[in-house]
Amino acid sequence: MIDSVIAYVQARTDEYSSKLSDFLRIPSISTDPAAKQAMRQAAEWCVRFFDDCGIEAEIVETAGHPAVLADTGPADRAGPTVLIYGHYDVQPTGDLGLWDSAPFEPVVREGRIYARGSADDKGQVFAHMVAAQAWKRAHGKLPVRMKFLIEGEEEIGSVNLGQLVIDHADRLACDYVCLSDSPKLDADTPAITFGTKGLLYKEVIYTGPKQDLHSGSFGGTVTNPANALAQLVARMKDADNRVAIPGYYDDVAESSQAELALLNKAPFDEEAYRQSLGSPALDGEKGFSTMERRWIRPTLDVNGLLSGFVGPGASTIIPARAMAKISMRLVPNQVVDTISQAFDDFVRSHTPPGVNVEILTHSGAEAYLCPVDHVGLAKAASAVRAGFGVEPAFIREGGTLPILPFFKKVLGAESIMIGLCVPNCNNHGPNEFFVLDDLYKGILTGVHLAVEMARA
Amino acid sequence: MIDSVIAYVQARTDEYSSKLSDFLRIPSISTDPAAKQAMRQAAEWCVRFFDDCGIEAEIVETAGHPAVLADTGPADRAGPTVLIYGHYDVQPTGDLGLWDSAPFEPVVREGRIYARGSADDKGQVFAHMVAAQAWKRAHGKLPVRMKFLIEGEEEIGSVNLGQLVIDHADRLACDYVCLSDSPKLDADTPAITFGTKGLLYKEVIYTGPKQDLHSGSFGGTVTNPANALAQLVARMKDADNRVAIPGYYDDVAESSQAELALLNKAPFDEEAYRQSLGSPALDGEKGFSTMERRWIRPTLDVNGLLSGFVGPGASTIIPARAMAKISMRLVPNQVVDTISQAFDDFVRSHTPPGVNVEILTHSGAEAYLCPVDHVGLAKAASAVRAGFGVEPAFIREGGTLPILPFFKKVLGAESIMIGLCVPNCNNHGPNEFFVLDDLYKGILTGVHLAVEMARA
Repeated sequence: MIDSVIAYVQARTDEYSSKLSDFLRIPSISTDPAAKQAMRQAAEWCVRFFDDCGIEAEIVETAGHPAVLADTGPADRAGPTVLIYGHYDVQPTGDLGLWDSAPFEPVVREGRIYARGSADDKGQVFAHMVAAQAWKRAHGKLPVRMKFLIEGEEEIGSVNLGQLVIDHADRLACDYVCLSDSPKLDADTPAITFGTKGLLYKEVIYTGPKQDLHSGSFGGTVTNPANALAQLVARMKDADNRVAIPGYYDDVAESSQAELALLNKAPFDEEAYRQSLGSPALDGEKGFSTMERRWIRPTLDVNGLLSGFVGPGASTIIPARAMAKISMRLVPNQVVDTISQAFDDFVRSHTPPGVNVEILTHSGAEAYLCPVDHVGLAKAASAVRAGFGVEPAFIREGGTLPILPFFKKVLGAESIMIGLCVPNCNNHGPNEFFVLDDLYKGILTGVHLAVEMARA
Repeated sequence: MIDSVIAYVQARTDEYSSKLSDFLRIPSISTDPAAKQAMRQAAEWCVRFFDDCGIEAEIVETAGHPAVLADTGPADRAGPTVLIYGHYDVQPTGDLGLWDSAPFEPVVREGRIYARGSADDKGQVFAHMVAAQAWKRAHGKLPVRMKFLIEGEEEIGSVNLGQLVIDHADRLACDYVCLSDSPKLDADTPAITFGTKGLLYKEVIYTGPKQDLHSGSFGGTVTNPANALAQLVARMKDADNRVAIPGYYDDVAESSQAELALLNKAPFDEEAYRQSLGSPALDGEKGFSTMERRWIRPTLDVNGLLSGFVGPGASTIIPARAMAKISMRLVPNQVVDTISQAFDDFVRSHTPPGVNVEILTHSGAEAYLCPVDHVGLAKAASAVRAGFGVEPAFIREGGTLPILPFFKKVLGAESIMIGLCVPNCNNHGPNEFFVLDDLYKGILTGVHLAVEMARA
């Protein structure tokens, strides 16, 4: 039965970039208040797409932008249900002058379709939509029950998605969550990502004198908030680049030998990686490989520093205030609240008496990890192997998808990430693109996924 | 002979605020290109003032704003020559909305004259100008040869003053330099300041990855320039708050017991000082008193920090760049070039391989110290005692006056700072004022200074 579906897709590969372009032309920038209408338009576009091929779909309202729910209905025989998760909202364009073509006027150049959202995530979720469409059109039905949840707030933190999942838990009930919102390992290697890091984002503000002071007249007599903040930040890591917050590593899950073996199979060229980032040298927590630090070990990074005079030239002040934004990427089984408390305790205990401290918490999200022996990973791998004709890499991701642990908690389903776009696809930057060959192979992967997931 | 001069001043105290107001109305903001004409107007006002009472004066051009030179000519009998140094340029007004009255429309409220430049430095140098005028008018001549150097670039770093002093060293030849451009110790206590700190101002820039990186995808694998810079800054001081740059204290001059005894006589209320700054606690180099740290010990302060995302909320980046502005206030006999080299060596040796470093030097100036047993200090103290009717405090200053060591080097003369304005006179801020009683007592001090300086 799959042969007719594949033939159907292959006969139409040239049409798909044109169809995707319709989707990409809608400037659905979720953070832009002026894009409210475009947001609804993009959601309606998805509903119409499903309607047109006989898949039930509707818009579901949230406190923010609407989401789209679709359902192919029960399959012929009893079997698992797959929920495809994706998002129709996109990042802002940034400086238009940096784009070689207009972000919402898709163009194909050298086998790539350029547009905002082409990779993140319209193009990737579109591959799964087209796969379902192909099954319906070529075969009349799918071998597996497939549901879609396409939200409009991923780029602004999925602020209303949790409530939506709770409110519609029955309709979203599934055995596997699949999503394509992550990259391939490299241009040649599609990736199945089975874990994401969590996130705890803090801001520490030191205040000292009531206003900036003359550094000559008053230097040496008061605690300089900027010097004190530098001391605090420096103390957060030891000489081995380990986070020095007491208890930080207490709950960190050890990776199994099976997992490490799987991750170590992913081809990784350290020097090429270094060069792509432009850093003079790679560095990190002592005792772990670059791959382990990137995917398995929790981190702590300063994201921003501000104090005193930062213009050109010199101003001789003792700043009244100093600020650091500091975030930690957490791993299984670190608990956000526990680490948050440990961080705050550390900051307060190392704050000298000469400054007052304020700590803000901007966000917290748990890590997610699908067990490496989970059958869904093997099924997805088979689909990718069939769709791309190569062996996928099994990797973890340092980024955070707060909804994944939430899917696990509310729906009881593990999430499997199937990366279809190249890592340098410029998502969030200018000239975002999606390689058309990856789009077609992604569609084929989606076609095979329906078969693989249906297997016992 | 002094009695007639004092009587002359006392008969005219009400006139002086009106005369000073004429000077203050000229908006001579040296940093403002639009004030070029006002700058010349202020210089000409000074020349006319001297001319009117028979003191030779003229404008001397520089590469920037002009300076005023005046000379009372040889005194009756051979004796020392005093050079009064001051400046006619003023700071910008800043936010006009913060002023209770227009900065260049002087008004008298509650015994204070409010205007930009009233204290810094027009009002203070005016006291010395009036003293010379009184001598000329009441007595026909001065008991001491008095010269004036009133520049127009003090608020922009006296950029052309060094060259002027070299070019006119003969005309400026003197035995003592006196200046009133510093504050009293407190409202009740005029101060004789006999030392200033030097200054070395650096900027350190760390660059890591070629652009900001996603802190999830790449965290833990590269050196974060902001974390590294915090480490570097933290290392610059040890647990005792001593500067940890090797050799930093090697050349620091020990204060004599005589000097410490003199400084310790200055009344100083630590708690009132702390409250006036608004710091939660006073702190600094271990083993030294607040007074010693403020005036005698070299310091190191961060003046500015900037890295990554500093807007409201959260952005999860590893910054590509981090910057710290760091200045050191130096003391006798620290040498700017030596400390500069030690600083650079320290920075380079503590920079990790994962970042590139750039070091900028914004300015360097040596400290100045008049020997505490210098006869000029005792003469100035006698004049202040006579003018104010109270004992002056002997203090040092943490701020920097690069011209003082230059006067010493080129003219061979020590500098004596006689502070006439209250410390909270809002110089550089809105609502700058000069207490009229301090103006009159400053004039009387100037009258007595001519006699005291003339003594053998």
